Amino acid sequence: MAELRREPIARRWVVITTDHPMRPSDYLPYKPPYRTPEPEGQCPFCPGNEGLTPKEVLSLKADGKGWSVRVIPNKFPFFHIEGEFDRRPEGMYDVMDAIGAHEIVVETPEHHQNLATMESNQIEKILTAYQERLIDLEKDRRFEQFLILKNYPGVFNRHSHSHIMAMPVIPRRIDEEIWGALDYYKRKERCIFCDIIKEEISAKKRVVLETVHFLVFCPFASRYPFETWIIPKAHAPDFHRLTAEEAGDFSVAIQTLFIRFYKLLSDPPYSIAFHTSPVQSRFHRTEYHWHFEARLRIGLREGFEWGTGFFVNPTPPEDAAAYLREVE
Amino acid sequence: MAELRREPIARRWVVITTDHPMRPSDYLPYKPPYRTPEPEGQCPFCPGNEGLTPKEVLSLKADGKGWSVRVIPNKFPFFHIEGEFDRRPEGMYDVMDAIGAHEIVVETPEHHQNLATMESNQIEKILTAYQERLIDLEKDRRFEQFLILKNYPGVFNRHSHSHIMAMPVIPRRIDEEIWGALDYYKRKERCIFCDIIKEEISAKKRVVLETVHFLVFCPFASRYPFETWIIPKAHAPDFHRLTAEEAGDFSVAIQTLFIRFYKLLSDPPYSIAFHTSPVQSRFHRTEYHWHFEARLRIGLREGFEWGTGFFVNPTPPEDAAAYLREVE
Repeated sequence: MAELRREPIARRWVVITTDHPMRPSDYLPYKPPYRTPEPEGQCPFCPGNEGLTPKEVLSLKADGKGWSVRVIPNKFPFFHIEGEFDRRPEGMYDVMDAIGAHEIVVETPEHHQNLATMESNQIEKILTAYQERLIDLEKDRRFEQFLILKNYPGVFNRHSHSHIMAMPVIPRRIDEEIWGALDYYKRKERCIFCDIIKEEISAKKRVVLETVHFLVFCPFASRYPFETWIIPKAHAPDFHRLTAEEAGDFSVAIQTLFIRFYKLLSDPPYSIAFHTSPVQSRFHRTEYHWHFEARLRIGLREGFEWGTGFFVNPTPPEDAAAYLREVE
Repeated sequence: MAELRREPIARRWVVITTDHPMRPSDYLPYKPPYRTPEPEGQCPFCPGNEGLTPKEVLSLKADGKGWSVRVIPNKFPFFHIEGEFDRRPEGMYDVMDAIGAHEIVVETPEHHQNLATMESNQIEKILTAYQERLIDLEKDRRFEQFLILKNYPGVFNRHSHSHIMAMPVIPRRIDEEIWGALDYYKRKERCIFCDIIKEEISAKKRVVLETVHFLVFCPFASRYPFETWIIPKAHAPDFHRLTAEEAGDFSVAIQTLFIRFYKLLSDPPYSIAFHTSPVQSRFHRTEYHWHFEARLRIGLREGFEWGTGFFVNPTPPEDAAAYLREVE
């Protein structure tokens, strides 16, 4: 079982994989993280190879035969589903077992598809799979926070997939957003995300796209070049309460954005995160507003960002939005 | 002039280089950030090419002829030294000019030296250059925070160098540490860093090395594999008030650590940050404790870290410290 350890100064939780630690030689040779090799032999995410993965927790049927989206437990989870937290001190420090859920969403049966090449109704099916899993996981009272994450290309397999995680603690970035949003609400009695949506629609220059239900924009203080958010225009704390009509609209917004990234920046590497309201803490219904964040992994200044928690962005969001608006 | 923009939700400052924005084509093709090519033609940091850089702000003499360490303004600074902040609203957002200092420390006249290969008295000279610059910059009342940072290998030039920055705002990571340390002090009337030092010396298993004045250890909740801190054992808020004797001892600790990284992990890429007390805020004398943090840039899980502010560390700090202790 991995451990969740609390950093005592900034009070940040860290997963330490005490159950299968990596040795120095496991890191060698250093490989660039941008391009993942094809799996040697059979891809465990391709149809016909389902036996190579753990048994699925969800499978959505394809229009023809077989499956269209498949959700499986991660073979190498950051969080383990079984057990108790066993919260305990270790000297002056705090530690607990890394309990949670960590599932893999195989986003398509086709090995070479990605968000820029697949149909929008396939993206809609992925969203449905996320929603169904979150509705199921919500029943487990041990979990405080859901995260949906995706790295493109994937770190271990290029077959398009994403991660669903349910965690027993609220991660720092969500926590920062919650406290910031609560503080703003106290002063204004308005949701800060709703205000940002109004500001961006009025200012126009950072807007990439507006659909019936969603705004796609580059945030004013974008930490990364071409950082882009997709946010529902109507106040909504939980991603997984999306209606079917909204999900259809959202899938078109996602498809359009990733086609534009693909064309503008030659199939760039990226990371995606869904930020949705904490599950058990029911006090954030009016203050917190779910959203989707995308970050391109280009032009990294990671030493500076790591050392300071400060960001330098060499492409202003107004420029980024203009470039993204103009992609044919 | 670049802009400092405040992210309105988590209230994090971001530098946006509105003065020389990068276009999509400037990012292509994507190169791995691990290995920097040699400069084409002349290296501006090598002796004889001083004319290729801005005029130095400090030059330490070598024992023979020429210089041993040279400090120059950065040609492409994140922060500009001249001007006023011009704090202003933009719609609902906050923005100011990116005023500050950004200097480059050329750490050695020899192009191919690094912290694992240079003599400890050369490292001592680098520390002297840092101290002299910080003592000088401290006179400028506009600055709130100093940061000394180093990426190895350097992003644009492999000739060993580091960055000194003076900022008009306190970056998030230092701010988190300060608030955590203040909160702990309120409860205990003790410095949390001093308590961590006592805990680590007593627990032993995460200690890499102990010198007369410094403790070298892998923190309990290490965010990165082989994350290592060097901290003065006696309480001290400011790095730049180090005595000459302490600096000599510190340089041996740095040299030993980086020789061990070099041998254990085949010359790994790393980043270094010095965390020292804010300069104008005089209320952190008893609570804040300066220290040196080193992070190896290996085994990145950046999508996850970015999406959550949460870290997964596959090499427990007890293992990391044991490996580092055992290097011959």
